[in-house]
Amino acid sequence: MRAVNRLRKTIHYYQRERVMMKKQIRLNGFTQNTVAPHSPGLWRHPKDKGRQHGDLDYWINLAKLLERGKFDALFLADVHGIYDVYGDNHKTPVKHAVQVPLHNPLLQISAMAAVTDNLGFAPTYSATYTQPYKLARDLSTLDHLTKGRVAWNIVTSYLRSEAINLGLEEQMEHRMRYERADEYMEVVYKLWEKSWEDDAVIADEVSGVYTNPNKVHPVHHSGKFFSVPGVHLVEPSPQRTPVLFQAGASERGRNFAATHAEAIFTTLANNISELKTFVADIRERAKRAGRNPEDIKVFPGIVPIVGETEEEAKLKYQELTSYVSYEGTLALLSGHTGVDFSTYDPNQYVENLETNASHGFLQKYTIATTNKLWTVREAVLHHGLGIGATKIIGTPEQVADELELMANEGDADGFNIIQAASPDTFEDFIEYVIPILQERGSFRKEYEASTLRENLFGKGHVHLPDNHPAKKVSIGLAEKV
Amino acid sequence: MRAVNRLRKTIHYYQRERVMMKKQIRLNGFTQNTVAPHSPGLWRHPKDKGRQHGDLDYWINLAKLLERGKFDALFLADVHGIYDVYGDNHKTPVKHAVQVPLHNPLLQISAMAAVTDNLGFAPTYSATYTQPYKLARDLSTLDHLTKGRVAWNIVTSYLRSEAINLGLEEQMEHRMRYERADEYMEVVYKLWEKSWEDDAVIADEVSGVYTNPNKVHPVHHSGKFFSVPGVHLVEPSPQRTPVLFQAGASERGRNFAATHAEAIFTTLANNISELKTFVADIRERAKRAGRNPEDIKVFPGIVPIVGETEEEAKLKYQELTSYVSYEGTLALLSGHTGVDFSTYDPNQYVENLETNASHGFLQKYTIATTNKLWTVREAVLHHGLGIGATKIIGTPEQVADELELMANEGDADGFNIIQAASPDTFEDFIEYVIPILQERGSFRKEYEASTLRENLFGKGHVHLPDNHPAKKVSIGLAEKV
Repeated sequence: MRAVNRLRKTIHYYQRERVMMKKQIRLNGFTQNTVAPHSPGLWRHPKDKGRQHGDLDYWINLAKLLERGKFDALFLADVHGIYDVYGDNHKTPVKHAVQVPLHNPLLQISAMAAVTDNLGFAPTYSATYTQPYKLARDLSTLDHLTKGRVAWNIVTSYLRSEAINLGLEEQMEHRMRYERADEYMEVVYKLWEKSWEDDAVIADEVSGVYTNPNKVHPVHHSGKFFSVPGVHLVEPSPQRTPVLFQAGASERGRNFAATHAEAIFTTLANNISELKTFVADIRERAKRAGRNPEDIKVFPGIVPIVGETEEEAKLKYQELTSYVSYEGTLALLSGHTGVDFSTYDPNQYVENLETNASHGFLQKYTIATTNKLWTVREAVLHHGLGIGATKIIGTPEQVADELELMANEGDADGFNIIQAASPDTFEDFIEYVIPILQERGSFRKEYEASTLRENLFGKGHVHLPDNHPAKKVSIGLAEKV
Repeated sequence: MRAVNRLRKTIHYYQRERVMMKKQIRLNGFTQNTVAPHSPGLWRHPKDKGRQHGDLDYWINLAKLLERGKFDALFLADVHGIYDVYGDNHKTPVKHAVQVPLHNPLLQISAMAAVTDNLGFAPTYSATYTQPYKLARDLSTLDHLTKGRVAWNIVTSYLRSEAINLGLEEQMEHRMRYERADEYMEVVYKLWEKSWEDDAVIADEVSGVYTNPNKVHPVHHSGKFFSVPGVHLVEPSPQRTPVLFQAGASERGRNFAATHAEAIFTTLANNISELKTFVADIRERAKRAGRNPEDIKVFPGIVPIVGETEEEAKLKYQELTSYVSYEGTLALLSGHTGVDFSTYDPNQYVENLETNASHGFLQKYTIATTNKLWTVREAVLHHGLGIGATKIIGTPEQVADELELMANEGDADGFNIIQAASPDTFEDFIEYVIPILQERGSFRKEYEASTLRENLFGKGHVHLPDNHPAKKVSIGLAEKV
């Protein structure tokens, strides 16, 4: 009997080691506070509930679902304008509910946090249209309310319709947006990391001192774009700086991401080889920025389409694609690229378009990168199901195989699961694929911890590592008297 | 037996009529997302839980409590800076937790909305530091999530520390702030009331049309301060325009409030006669602005302090006052008035201060309005318990008597209940005073409806009345092509 126990113990040890040595996949659920976020037209699918995005119950159920699936975070995309590049007006996006109506993505988070314990929340918040002093308070507030489960998806905003409705004469020039964003990060880092010392709040009832004023420091920021002399309004939250998400695609955007981001999202890699190149490039840039390449997690976006058999999955893909709104997707793609597709022939080949093909979203559909001649129509239908992200179509085992391949060969750290129909895509994935990944030891059976950064980087990693630029900002020593 | 029944019926009829004829009191719970919102030092009180304001449970329990008390709304004050006028630095407010740490007041609302059905939420949101296109989306989002239970407390912000950290070189001049605020209101009215027609969203699965684009209109706003050409990003929410709260005290502020507000908050009336004069003044101004004077509800702030006997209540008042932080309150009063009280002798009389005594908060403590000679110390201690609002100290019956007097003789429509200790003040009031007001027919036993505007103005009044300026804005007919 003792021998049996010893053998069992040995087997258990190897099983554990096997699990521990396997690359652990991270998962975000990707959505937006709108009707049919990333798949125009899919609101008509019988299983889609996106129309209910104005109801708290919709979000509460979504959060519970993703926590049941042990997802790391719910990733909330956002813009603050209309996709009015197509035909130069708002009518097409309005007609097809292409990210309009579009509600604020931060305001439903506390209701979701109240019914979950571990799921993270990664809302998008533009650094172009909110003062850093305000954004810093908002995200610190959420980090307190969620007890350390908040990320910030940093964007600099790309729609002209945002700029002109939000106080700018014209959209800020791309290079300028990033230069400003770099200084923006400096300001929020100062507020989050340096303004309040860890032990500033003492709440001493006897002396009547709530906070030791000598441990709260004005940040004295004075730069090209921002002047923020004061102290942060919020005491240190569990994570201090929220987990930093980014999705830079351009040269400048990739450097920004490699410098600041802890999680990077991309839909541009079409295959394992492109993915591998992309990830290597990001890790190399991170190294050049003085960071540990493993401190950036790369999340390709994927649309999983699962069936009991491969045929069933393919049929499901066809069925889902049949709901894609062609005109709606044209409007979406026009917004994403800045190219007005209303003037193009659906049957012409994408590579022959006279546009700025250096734009990632279009480059993706040229023959050079995909070994496929795409017509405008084909590119649009592909873009219309999950904003052009890789579709993984097959049995649960096949989907799991592909994800493990992308993780192990492509060096992806995890995936942003993009939905065709909401919450149908998440439900299928959680019911059929998650158990297989768990069984194979590629995905957690229980959360490692309760803060988001710890779930992404391991128990104990509540705060940013010391080599992150946030830890290196200085607020000087002078005190305002 | 039939005769008895008939008599009973008659009695019942008169009782109902008595109830129906009695002026119905409205109630808001007044707080802020901070440690000790309106009573510096009270965080040390054994029953105070303000330190937990970063926890969702604190807010969830507060919302449930107020809904159990049939309150109309939870009113959330806010600033976005530090009370650093006192001694010209941040140390005193930081030390005594005088509205710092201070978290965003909008972000916990959805968690409270998820556990309540009728309670309204009235967060403060500055019209000075957020673009109207953004604020309009945020409040429309909340009005959807709460199913029509949101108000907006309009402020133009008074702290220099807000201005200099939020992108302005200096604080905007008072007159300019209001001129800008008037245009701000015009912009948000256009977005809320005119951009989307009621039946714009059709979600027709057959034709594939989600929104009829001919029923969604760009607002074409172009003014002195704002340019907002586009369409609102959110489809009509239950109330469209949130219920409008305001607390203007100055001449310009009162006109702004009388023009726009549906609920006005004040702490400046010291007695029935002053209250009556204030309310009459507001209603007169409303009339001049073309509105029905009854369409503005006036809510004086009060601090109820209840005991089983009058003596017990007085002892409780003394006990609560003993926790007031003198230095913390000086910082609060300095911020409220713009006068640095660090240079004044606590024993000198307020009326002799060489300051701009036209400021409402100071005028309040001069002999002319109160028939009492106040020293700086006395004024500060009075201000330190509920920002100088009227204290109503007595048995539950006495408190109820005084509220009915203020409602019937002073013409108050309701009260903002300001707390000494949180949630102790609300708990006592709800346990002891509410049942008496209900018994006397002065306060609801059940909510009239589920939207906030209906609870304030009666079943069916979901939207603003036609004579409100929001209904009169025009967006022109030209369409962007």
